[in-house]
Amino acid sequence: MRTDDRPVSSPVAHPGGSPDTSPLLTDLYQLTMLGAYYERAMESQAVFEFYVRRLPENRNFLLMAGLEQLLDYLATLRFSNDDLAWLESTGRFKPGMLARLADFRFSGDVYSISEGSVFFADEPVLRVMAPLPEAQFIESRLINLLHFQTLIASKAARCRLAAGRKRLVDYGMRRAHGAEAALLASRASYLGGFDATATLEAARRFGIPIAGSMSHAFVQAHATELEAFRSFAQCHPNDLTLLIDTFDVERGAARAVELARELQAANVRIRAVRIDSGDLAANARRVRSILDKADLADVEIVVSGALEEYAISALARWEAPIDCFGVGTKLDVSADSPMMDCVYKLQEYAGRASRKKSVGKGSWPGRRQVHRTYDDNGRIALDMVCRAEEVMEGRALLHPVMLNGHRTQRSPPLAEIRAHAMAEIATLPLSMQSLDHGPRSPVKISPALRSLASQVDRIAH
Amino acid sequence: MRTDDRPVSSPVAHPGGSPDTSPLLTDLYQLTMLGAYYERAMESQAVFEFYVRRLPENRNFLLMAGLEQLLDYLATLRFSNDDLAWLESTGRFKPGMLARLADFRFSGDVYSISEGSVFFADEPVLRVMAPLPEAQFIESRLINLLHFQTLIASKAARCRLAAGRKRLVDYGMRRAHGAEAALLASRASYLGGFDATATLEAARRFGIPIAGSMSHAFVQAHATELEAFRSFAQCHPNDLTLLIDTFDVERGAARAVELARELQAANVRIRAVRIDSGDLAANARRVRSILDKADLADVEIVVSGALEEYAISALARWEAPIDCFGVGTKLDVSADSPMMDCVYKLQEYAGRASRKKSVGKGSWPGRRQVHRTYDDNGRIALDMVCRAEEVMEGRALLHPVMLNGHRTQRSPPLAEIRAHAMAEIATLPLSMQSLDHGPRSPVKISPALRSLASQVDRIAH
Repeated sequence: MRTDDRPVSSPVAHPGGSPDTSPLLTDLYQLTMLGAYYERAMESQAVFEFYVRRLPENRNFLLMAGLEQLLDYLATLRFSNDDLAWLESTGRFKPGMLARLADFRFSGDVYSISEGSVFFADEPVLRVMAPLPEAQFIESRLINLLHFQTLIASKAARCRLAAGRKRLVDYGMRRAHGAEAALLASRASYLGGFDATATLEAARRFGIPIAGSMSHAFVQAHATELEAFRSFAQCHPNDLTLLIDTFDVERGAARAVELARELQAANVRIRAVRIDSGDLAANARRVRSILDKADLADVEIVVSGALEEYAISALARWEAPIDCFGVGTKLDVSADSPMMDCVYKLQEYAGRASRKKSVGKGSWPGRRQVHRTYDDNGRIALDMVCRAEEVMEGRALLHPVMLNGHRTQRSPPLAEIRAHAMAEIATLPLSMQSLDHGPRSPVKISPALRSLASQVDRIAH
Repeated sequence: MRTDDRPVSSPVAHPGGSPDTSPLLTDLYQLTMLGAYYERAMESQAVFEFYVRRLPENRNFLLMAGLEQLLDYLATLRFSNDDLAWLESTGRFKPGMLARLADFRFSGDVYSISEGSVFFADEPVLRVMAPLPEAQFIESRLINLLHFQTLIASKAARCRLAAGRKRLVDYGMRRAHGAEAALLASRASYLGGFDATATLEAARRFGIPIAGSMSHAFVQAHATELEAFRSFAQCHPNDLTLLIDTFDVERGAARAVELARELQAANVRIRAVRIDSGDLAANARRVRSILDKADLADVEIVVSGALEEYAISALARWEAPIDCFGVGTKLDVSADSPMMDCVYKLQEYAGRASRKKSVGKGSWPGRRQVHRTYDDNGRIALDMVCRAEEVMEGRALLHPVMLNGHRTQRSPPLAEIRAHAMAEIATLPLSMQSLDHGPRSPVKISPALRSLASQVDRIAH
């Protein structure tokens, strides 16, 4: 644990490859443990499971997300010569170990619930079965990928529940935590019920619809607000959203009306106006009234500014005349709960079930499955967590998504995952679809699993 | 603003290049605005400034970080043929605009405070002067890069203030928000006073010292805890940190003592034991006592588990015998404040100063400078925010770091930036070095700047 006082080596400012695919995007201890596993030939099958220990405050359910990126990572995981040379340069790894890493591949099986499925605390949602070094090594990036997208998809689902049928657009790129967070937040929020993103690279990578308007700087750069609106209309007659609050929102709305009259001859219509400040409900009402009086009832109102599910829900409750919410920072950082207590734990090694017993962090041993049963209205009644081999009523949630390192199926289109997520949310009891703290979790532990735990605890370590 | 109901195009799963260098890592509106700027030949010089509107709750100061990555971004910003082809495929951009993007370069000037400098709300810390389309386009990624590292460096500085001279290691990769967040959190936390990171890729890219131990899975995978310790010692005799809380922390400590005796003959020493659960102060005391009685006073104690500045400060106050803190998720997501209200605003266009007046989001106009004066003890007395051309007492904080698109100096080594940050923190009044809410900010606005604001407001828009 002691750290050297000096850097381990000169920094490599631009190592080959992208940071998101580097096998060195991991914790040092994964590699030090691998060294010991290889030396002692501890390469029997290990079973690890990913689960959430406790739901974050203000969450009644979670939406599984990030599986696609995880399977990509597992399928392409390789150490390049540059990676190996750098590891060697640290002086921490033996030649035998580095030789093994040169051939490192993920060759294991992965069982998972589907992306977009709802789940709760204390139930396994992903199981990895692979030789111990492989199953161990992938831990850090596996958690990194599943944690973040699940966090954002679950937050987005709450925004969707609050917004009803109104449109939701992800505006969060600028204050997301870095490049990958911005892109994966767009993906996860679309999956969780958003309609579009403002982030171009996310639109390119994931085929998500894009949306946007203009910034205050655009308005300021022109001599007058009306001049700015004209300039934008001339360039983008087919997708015309005007930001009307740079100086004064009612005057901005009046300018939009003025422009609409000018554009009439050319048959160009204003699609929407955006309000980004002040009392959004009051401003939306005032602006709606100005627009309606000018016979512009079809011009929509977009609002933005520090929005998340709570503000959206209040605006919906007050029946503010809003058509679309631009949701930014608080979505992309999951502001009310920027992290989840999720873990990836060893359940079994070489056929022997085990669990840790650290105070406050105990776990259930062995490989597990979740069986979900529904009530007569199609709502989730019970999630029974049991030993994988138990025969149980209900639908088994974990199914193979990767066998021997190969995906069992092509990735479903994102729109399909999103549709599945919307259907899954509809299976939640109504009390869990509320933003308020819902009823206790539907998760139960099977008697056979409890009995295995007692059995495991009787073994001396 | 209206969003299409279908994806704009088929997703491009693996576009060329890394997400963190893509010019499409931006908001749609930057490009729609550029289209209008080009069409109307609005290419005069624009001045934008980056600043924080309000300090996050629980922060008395901020540490500037992320400048290095921003300058890299500006110096290498290019649209590839693939980027342009994709933009064309969206049907949103005219050929003339795409031709301009093919030649797009950042050719402007950047003035900034140094990385590692302390700053406060309402003062400009970075100024961009460039033709309007360039200065506008870079907004989204500029904020994305400066926001996150400043957030983490500032949080890390608080951990350093709480920890005194004890060692701090970043363990946060797994629950950081994606790949880039993990890497930049390592960099920013080192800059803010951490000693090391567990993240290998960050060590490679930034030359940060690395540290780590073993996981609970490693212990569980062996038949007994002692067997696990032996196995690790055999493989890593020179960097031996044992995780002792998998089953029972006192028994774990006893096993560490047992191993220390076995290793004596081979002259191998245990460097540290790690405790990751329970009451860390009480556990550290019990373990310290077990180790001391066994004549292992030089074996250090590392603790981890949901730590951040508050818990570190409490453990230090209780004089818990702890040598090193592993700080994970709550550092890497800045848990108590995962975002800052920072913006990049147009201050001046074509020689004309301007400001927005949106309710609650007003700003000061024109190009600005900050002059800092110190008291007799070398503590910050006053930050005077004034017009750039004013002659003022005190040290001017903003200085050129890029001219005509070229950096004015080579990047300083990260260790040097870190040393500067530590010196800067020492210039804070002691009340601001406390974790508690400190005195009001030392920032004042010069009379000439106030007078410019009134002047600007008299112009009709």
